[in-house]
Amino acid sequence: MIEKARELDAADPLSAFRARFHVPDGVIYLDGNSLGCLPKATPAAMAHAVEREWGDGLIRSWNASELGAGWFEMGSRVGARIAPLIGAQPQEVIATDTVSTNLFKLISAALAMQAQTGTTRRKVILSEPGNFPTDIYMIQGLESQGLATRRLAPREHLMAELDDDVALLMLTHAHYKTGELFDMDALTKAAHDAGALVLWDLSHSTGALPVDLNGVNADFAVGCGYKYLCGGPGAPAFAFVAQRHHGDLKQPLTGWFGHARPFAFLDDYEAAPGIEQLQCGTSPILGLTALEVGVDLIAEIGVERLHQKSRALSEFFLECVLSNGLDLDLVSPRDSSERGSQLSFRHDNAYAICQALIARGVIGDFRDPDILRLGFAPAYLRFEDMADAARHLAEVFERSEWQRPEFAARSAVT
Amino acid sequence: MIEKARELDAADPLSAFRARFHVPDGVIYLDGNSLGCLPKATPAAMAHAVEREWGDGLIRSWNASELGAGWFEMGSRVGARIAPLIGAQPQEVIATDTVSTNLFKLISAALAMQAQTGTTRRKVILSEPGNFPTDIYMIQGLESQGLATRRLAPREHLMAELDDDVALLMLTHAHYKTGELFDMDALTKAAHDAGALVLWDLSHSTGALPVDLNGVNADFAVGCGYKYLCGGPGAPAFAFVAQRHHGDLKQPLTGWFGHARPFAFLDDYEAAPGIEQLQCGTSPILGLTALEVGVDLIAEIGVERLHQKSRALSEFFLECVLSNGLDLDLVSPRDSSERGSQLSFRHDNAYAICQALIARGVIGDFRDPDILRLGFAPAYLRFEDMADAARHLAEVFERSEWQRPEFAARSAVT
Repeated sequence: MIEKARELDAADPLSAFRARFHVPDGVIYLDGNSLGCLPKATPAAMAHAVEREWGDGLIRSWNASELGAGWFEMGSRVGARIAPLIGAQPQEVIATDTVSTNLFKLISAALAMQAQTGTTRRKVILSEPGNFPTDIYMIQGLESQGLATRRLAPREHLMAELDDDVALLMLTHAHYKTGELFDMDALTKAAHDAGALVLWDLSHSTGALPVDLNGVNADFAVGCGYKYLCGGPGAPAFAFVAQRHHGDLKQPLTGWFGHARPFAFLDDYEAAPGIEQLQCGTSPILGLTALEVGVDLIAEIGVERLHQKSRALSEFFLECVLSNGLDLDLVSPRDSSERGSQLSFRHDNAYAICQALIARGVIGDFRDPDILRLGFAPAYLRFEDMADAARHLAEVFERSEWQRPEFAARSAVT
Repeated sequence: MIEKARELDAADPLSAFRARFHVPDGVIYLDGNSLGCLPKATPAAMAHAVEREWGDGLIRSWNASELGAGWFEMGSRVGARIAPLIGAQPQEVIATDTVSTNLFKLISAALAMQAQTGTTRRKVILSEPGNFPTDIYMIQGLESQGLATRRLAPREHLMAELDDDVALLMLTHAHYKTGELFDMDALTKAAHDAGALVLWDLSHSTGALPVDLNGVNADFAVGCGYKYLCGGPGAPAFAFVAQRHHGDLKQPLTGWFGHARPFAFLDDYEAAPGIEQLQCGTSPILGLTALEVGVDLIAEIGVERLHQKSRALSEFFLECVLSNGLDLDLVSPRDSSERGSQLSFRHDNAYAICQALIARGVIGDFRDPDILRLGFAPAYLRFEDMADAARHLAEVFERSEWQRPEFAARSAVT
């Protein structure tokens, strides 16, 4: 398969972009859906932010007029650059805080909107069991405050669960474990028909899949900066609120960076009129600096092209797996149009297999209890990597490497 | 005064530490209480985190066993290093999120503890008007949820306001505008006697003033990473919860990083047993990297020595101001034992004066509506800087520079 892989790489219109990322020697990195690779432009951007903007500019860098840093606007600026990747307008997106914290704000905002407009008090937040844990936990946080009720229903029953109590349908577009995609259009429509608002978690979509938030008439969204956007470990997340809701937007994390006039130092909170209201504390400038580089690079490559390549990579990987005689239990949808940029396989020894692959330089992910998850970040992976990874996987099985004791012992953190 | 200044610098046991910071040429930086200077060790630490830990280590750097990065523990590790600066035990402090978000968690935690133990339902959060705005705004956030009631009383009336409705007394140790200090010991005792818990905001204290949280029996505290701790713009903040409260700790920002077993990917939230419960989303590794360098450097210099020098600097500055024949309206306490590491002056033209000083390379701060705030970060300022700054200030008045039109126009953000 290696010859075919090389032909595919030679014909790949994105092949030149690999050189814009730092991919360590000897590593086939199938975990860009957990932490994206480092863009080669990032170290210089970070050094500039640290040494020039902070070191020389000091407090003056908060303003746009001094040294051009404009830190105050940075959350809005990076948000505006993420917007076209997800079908949003620039003023609908802000880069701030974490996915978890942004979920808390937006679930709260949905509850407040429902309380304002509804005749009955809708308090149910509907999601699916097995959604990414933090999404479910953040509902529980509001539940512990007595403000929300968590309801989890398997995805095939979600439509039926959209009753008069549901304030918000909150789902992750591409499932973190299986990669299975929701039909955003159909579910958003169904939720709206039932009087519910919709929040899409785009953590496993943004930068790898085309998303059209305004096309499907979404209300809210959140997404992750450190996966396909290559913003670095623990990068700031983003949040989206549809323009039509800006007038009614209220959320309880009312920090000074979300104030209409933070430097008036008033005793009373007055929310900024737009998406800036979602900011809470002081913007994390160093994290935003790295995120901006990643977003710009992904935007330059283009989400449509990334999606095409992502599908081609995973299809070719499956072809290589088959050609190696491996018969694996695929839990991701077989049709690449129905899944995110990943393939997940179920195996009782998934943990040890993952460790054996890592020892060979093939870095994938184990997801408890029995899932080997391989991500195909299309910006920097080659078809040759697919052929090599499949060969390594076949050898792990042929040589029963996963049975070695050093791969069996699970660490607390994986 | 310049000769006396040089004598004082020559005798200053901390004078050598200035070389460990990047202080831009031509700048006298009297705003380290807003954004601390860059430690010279930070750029290399950031480059290492970006290029080696992220670039080479990739996802493996989350674990301590791979490349030694140990990102998962980083919030706890940096928190433990902050602990001795504020009289806390290592396991009582965590570096995470922002001051604002941490306030929300800890106010919520206080309300939950009061609901659990109290006979009546205490909902009042007592603070003072003119406290740093975000502190007051975060109370309003919980008020908007119907969970708290904000009560603001001038500091001389706080003790009298500690009635049976007060759940939490929440104050900033060193006032951001005037530098005035609260007596932490007396107020904590008074609050406890009245059945209230106490939260101290140490944003303008940590790294400049000795604080003994356990000595005064404090319940909660928050503090800022980007002022005296020199953690960089928008650095992660920290939070403290006294060990005796860990068993009862409950807060509503229940993200996956605060889960007891985040990588079990369970549907139900189970709080981590200790201070780690205050983590919510994924830790901001790049921000924590810079913060760690600043904390280590400040800890190496030592808070007691920093405080002594800070007092000496501000005393000497006032002496220089007087010797220049200036008669300014000092709003900070005259006794340096009663104020933080700053001096604030009231003047109708404070904004223009501040701008005229900045044009001369003397960077202070304007605080609406009429305060010129000069901070004396003791780690990198010299007595010579005090003499020079006072001379510049005198010249601004002698030459009426603040009347120049270019200094009068207020920008939206100052």
